[in-house]
Amino acid sequence: MFKAYAAAEAGKELKPFEFDPGTLGPDEVEVKVESCGICHSDLSMLNNDWSITTYPFVPGHEVIGIVDAVGEKVDHLITGQRVGIGWNSKSCMSCEWCVGGDHNLCASVEGTIMGRHGGFADRVRVDGAWAIPIPTELNHEAAGPLLCGGITVFNPILQFDIQSTDCVGVIGIGGLGHMAIKFFYEHGCEVTAFSSSPAKEEEAKSFGADHFVNSSDPVALGKIAGSMDFIISTVNVTLDWAAYINILRPKGRLHVVGAVMEPISVPVLPMLLGQKSVSGSPVGSPESIGKMLDFAARNDIEPVVEKYAMAKVNDAMEKFRSGKPRYRLVLVNK
Amino acid sequence: MFKAYAAAEAGKELKPFEFDPGTLGPDEVEVKVESCGICHSDLSMLNNDWSITTYPFVPGHEVIGIVDAVGEKVDHLITGQRVGIGWNSKSCMSCEWCVGGDHNLCASVEGTIMGRHGGFADRVRVDGAWAIPIPTELNHEAAGPLLCGGITVFNPILQFDIQSTDCVGVIGIGGLGHMAIKFFYEHGCEVTAFSSSPAKEEEAKSFGADHFVNSSDPVALGKIAGSMDFIISTVNVTLDWAAYINILRPKGRLHVVGAVMEPISVPVLPMLLGQKSVSGSPVGSPESIGKMLDFAARNDIEPVVEKYAMAKVNDAMEKFRSGKPRYRLVLVNK
Repeated sequence: MFKAYAAAEAGKELKPFEFDPGTLGPDEVEVKVESCGICHSDLSMLNNDWSITTYPFVPGHEVIGIVDAVGEKVDHLITGQRVGIGWNSKSCMSCEWCVGGDHNLCASVEGTIMGRHGGFADRVRVDGAWAIPIPTELNHEAAGPLLCGGITVFNPILQFDIQSTDCVGVIGIGGLGHMAIKFFYEHGCEVTAFSSSPAKEEEAKSFGADHFVNSSDPVALGKIAGSMDFIISTVNVTLDWAAYINILRPKGRLHVVGAVMEPISVPVLPMLLGQKSVSGSPVGSPESIGKMLDFAARNDIEPVVEKYAMAKVNDAMEKFRSGKPRYRLVLVNK
Repeated sequence: MFKAYAAAEAGKELKPFEFDPGTLGPDEVEVKVESCGICHSDLSMLNNDWSITTYPFVPGHEVIGIVDAVGEKVDHLITGQRVGIGWNSKSCMSCEWCVGGDHNLCASVEGTIMGRHGGFADRVRVDGAWAIPIPTELNHEAAGPLLCGGITVFNPILQFDIQSTDCVGVIGIGGLGHMAIKFFYEHGCEVTAFSSSPAKEEEAKSFGADHFVNSSDPVALGKIAGSMDFIISTVNVTLDWAAYINILRPKGRLHVVGAVMEPISVPVLPMLLGQKSVSGSPVGSPESIGKMLDFAARNDIEPVVEKYAMAKVNDAMEKFRSGKPRYRLVLVNK
């Protein structure tokens, strides 16, 4: 039996929950959970915000753990190996996206907490392709949040060929945003942090931001018109998108990774005259997760985390709901 | 004196107008106009739709003509040579965009009909950099519309690295759209034409479209969900943008070249989950115009034009205003 924490209904407290995972599938691995980050989408799923949650619901998709059993068809992982598991747990492995290395865009990709039980548990199972080896040099105790939040902000660097000579902006200095600043800093970019909390300026700069702009100040946004190649928005609220289009240089891109529910409205002429783009992207492929982990290990990039014992999961969720984590919470199995 | 046709005020009839162009600048060339296409932006400027027109206003920025005088600093063009002139007439030649080959994105780029007199005339002057040699193999009598409408739809092929294996869509089968179909066809793409006029199906296919979809039919749009890599919108009205985002495959791009005045509203989740982009772009650089003209010459691509004598310019404008040109009108100097 797997021992997990589950919500019986939308928005309810997480309670101890045991379940029989059945026979290990030939493509699966079973992982003993060492730690699991808490991501905003765990909360959205717990609350059934997207109307797709099944209950009992076990959150958790930023898992670090040790491979404890390997399906008969999995030949690239061995028991005892440390791996990370993120938002996705399985993909078809045969469509053009999977064979082309973009498994995260597979139409049949399955979430780690969608229709299966996640990492707020002692064990979790996923397909071997989605259990990504953790480099030994990486501080694995803080690495969980890299697997979802981290890859979400790192993958665009690969997808859009961000250069070290680029001026980039990061909107929202939270769980995702603080990792984005660290990645862009190590990637060599000139980094501007945008936040409506001026109190975050000092910390943003400690993560590597060169500049800090108060995103609530239209005058400050206007002053930096035409200065940035790439802006990533990590928040899930509607912003003055036109102001950020205006901040882009020609050929610039405003890239949204926060799941904003309202449509984004952008003025056509500034986009057209400056050959600008607006886009989005979801997490990353196994290959890009691997590259991100290597890059993080090589550059000592780790999220700033606050740790809770797994048994204190409801305390951690309470802290998370309050919106005050700085910057990511991690549940640890003792 | 240059002999032109000018409107004295917004929306007024074009009347014969003579002006002294002054001394030829060292970077300029003077071109004897053989023909000049009529573009929708001529009408927008004539009507002062963008509140930037100065009067008397001489339209015309799809010029084919013969170099008749060359400024002292222009050493790549000679008198007697046939050139084309498009939307732009001058750029700074020293900013990063000009030196990087993206002169059309120069912050100081000047329009051929903005603050100077355009090609509805016997002569026109522009900087030598923006007078693009016309390949001898090209049917120059129909080539004018390539210089603005043509490059507007061709440039994205270069900018976004469109592949011959891509499935592309063209929204709006008018002046720009019919050239887009021809370019994409010769580029090797699978091409779908979108139009609200089912009567255009046959012609769209004659231009090279593999498929035709009635853009007023939501069911038809729904049926082709997830099928296209690139969709270019050539219309200047608000569409059901979400429907076209839905038609894109993962990593697909909806690219807008029609100057829509209302903001574009796009749903975030479909864009984010499918790593999709929305973008725009303006005409093209001298280099891309040159490549486009070579490609057109090599593949016998020419716009479908209806010719009017320059003196019949008001008849042509009337036809243009009626929205019924098939597909582009060209004024010819005898």
